[in-house]
Amino acid sequence: MSFIAHPQFMQFDQPLPLKSGCRLDSYALAYETYGQLNARRSNAVLVCHALNASHHVAGMYEGQPKSTGWWDNMIGPGKPLDTNRFFVIGINNLGSCFGSTGPMHENPATGRAWGADFPVVTVEDWVAAQARLLDALGIEQLAAVMGGSLGGMQALSWTLQYPERMRHAVVIASAPNLTAENIAFNEVARRAIVTDPDFHGGHFYDHGVIPRRGLRIARMIGHITYLSDDVMNQKFGRQLREGLDLRYSTQDIEFQIESYLRHQADKFSEYFDANTYLLITRALDYFDPAREHGGSLSQALAGVLAKFLIISFTTDWRFSPARSREIVQALLDNRRDVSYAKINAPHGHDAFLLDDPRYHHLVAAYFNRIAQEVQA
Amino acid sequence: MSFIAHPQFMQFDQPLPLKSGCRLDSYALAYETYGQLNARRSNAVLVCHALNASHHVAGMYEGQPKSTGWWDNMIGPGKPLDTNRFFVIGINNLGSCFGSTGPMHENPATGRAWGADFPVVTVEDWVAAQARLLDALGIEQLAAVMGGSLGGMQALSWTLQYPERMRHAVVIASAPNLTAENIAFNEVARRAIVTDPDFHGGHFYDHGVIPRRGLRIARMIGHITYLSDDVMNQKFGRQLREGLDLRYSTQDIEFQIESYLRHQADKFSEYFDANTYLLITRALDYFDPAREHGGSLSQALAGVLAKFLIISFTTDWRFSPARSREIVQALLDNRRDVSYAKINAPHGHDAFLLDDPRYHHLVAAYFNRIAQEVQA
Repeated sequence: MSFIAHPQFMQFDQPLPLKSGCRLDSYALAYETYGQLNARRSNAVLVCHALNASHHVAGMYEGQPKSTGWWDNMIGPGKPLDTNRFFVIGINNLGSCFGSTGPMHENPATGRAWGADFPVVTVEDWVAAQARLLDALGIEQLAAVMGGSLGGMQALSWTLQYPERMRHAVVIASAPNLTAENIAFNEVARRAIVTDPDFHGGHFYDHGVIPRRGLRIARMIGHITYLSDDVMNQKFGRQLREGLDLRYSTQDIEFQIESYLRHQADKFSEYFDANTYLLITRALDYFDPAREHGGSLSQALAGVLAKFLIISFTTDWRFSPARSREIVQALLDNRRDVSYAKINAPHGHDAFLLDDPRYHHLVAAYFNRIAQEVQA
Repeated sequence: MSFIAHPQFMQFDQPLPLKSGCRLDSYALAYETYGQLNARRSNAVLVCHALNASHHVAGMYEGQPKSTGWWDNMIGPGKPLDTNRFFVIGINNLGSCFGSTGPMHENPATGRAWGADFPVVTVEDWVAAQARLLDALGIEQLAAVMGGSLGGMQALSWTLQYPERMRHAVVIASAPNLTAENIAFNEVARRAIVTDPDFHGGHFYDHGVIPRRGLRIARMIGHITYLSDDVMNQKFGRQLREGLDLRYSTQDIEFQIESYLRHQADKFSEYFDANTYLLITRALDYFDPAREHGGSLSQALAGVLAKFLIISFTTDWRFSPARSREIVQALLDNRRDVSYAKINAPHGHDAFLLDDPRYHHLVAAYFNRIAQEVQA
């Protein structure tokens, strides 16, 4: 049983210039806050979300017992990021399908849904939008920005875009950019979506259909990359779906792993927006702070002021520990304060969302240190 | 410049019972042979193919300079498997789309193309069909059966189904069965194909269309798993397709890796049959000789008589070295003669098809040993 969370919305009418050169003239952001901002305004922590998540980070909605936030095991009263001490903010990113302005909303220029015409948004754009919301909340400096996976990229980008507006970055299961293989998986997922005849060039809303086939394939690919080979073998192995007999069919389900993937794919295709999937995977592809520094991450991070906690998981092959160590090394090159932990966990990339005691103790200890520092 | 190869066909009218319980009443096999069968009939080597390959193992077709066989760097006069000494046979597997009877051929029961009604074929069925073709060629015992990947599974299955009909098994970049992750990737590829509206339940031939969208996605997924993360980073990295400028688009190509994958996908969808893709990935899923022995590979291999050469590649994450070592261990448990090599190669699963000198020297040395043994 968790606490009750209350989603809020904030409307922005000052144009937001985007990295692509486009701009959003007006937009709304969905967000939630937990805990109390202290009198010194020193205890605010921004938690950034990854692909399939939102501003609903922790707690549950009144009367909806299954509506627990996506990082509820990490954040709440008495939890590693303790809302009795910290004021925690979750913000839904632009282009998402969970409340903030996105492709399914009206494009003021046409009066129709944005669809595939929604401007391409980047990690840097999300961070800029988050900073404006914090302005409106009267938060000048964050105690920390924290995120896993794509959320970790946002935390890293915060340290570059607003070095003076934050004290700590907690970057979990993340990377300084995507590898060719990461981009390749994203590209297959996007191709599955855009070549689904129900995609209609991204304007499927007008046709009363959803490119579910493509979304299902995208989700299956995603799921495979979130899990480790080991945990898949432990959970499913070569177990058959029905008893011991093979049915010898190319299209029916034979193995439990097939059943699991199809189920996950069906669920996802019911609630996730296809254009959002394209936008978010592209934001992942584009993120690369070293790019404007001749590929040198050390140079890119030269202006960083924040202290870092960086965590990776041994079996995460999507964002492997080696990628986290690249960030650690670049910070050390700049003599920055960085703590790094590689957690031995079998769960692959998904480990960052799971309730591992060593991992949670580590985060709790780090936030204790921050609490003392900011007198939270 | 390689030698000239000549495809041949053999018709079989004795029904072939299949592992599924179905049977094929009549069928044709496409095959090629290189070199000369010696007087003792002791120098025959069967080479088994994997997913996207055929009986056209080596050499080229007259007047078609781009028609080089898929393992031409390994097999031919003076090559590791030397056709000056060995009589090499390549056979196209049943259900393929390269010549042997498959889903695009006529189902005698309906007068229409088999389509998705083509019976599910297994590795064991392929091996049984291969054995019949060898009967017809008058080859009682093979000097060796050799294969990579799915071809290696056939070589392994030969040692179980016809232990006395072969002296050596050369099993390269293979595994004793698929992991859950392997099955998962196959399943995503199959779902992409069968949910393509142009699939028409597998009877797309009757509609004059091809489920190209699904085939493209299947091929992209395959390609990612054939390569290592490292080699992808070396070949493509985060290189942009056109100069240095980002275009900020979710659907246009930005990165070289995307361009490469789309190109491979387009090519593949032009020539590969969708039903064949389903059949071959299912044959991979089903292969599991330990299954009928309570999961014990050691027990499954107790009746093996062949000597083994087993080779794996360090960066192969599709069929990792650990999977090859499982076969090695099961053979050692049975005190069988096995040589094992793990080759340090950056290319991932694809390494078994590439021209690595250490790898080729190893295979050459092993076939020298066989040549002496069989007086080839």
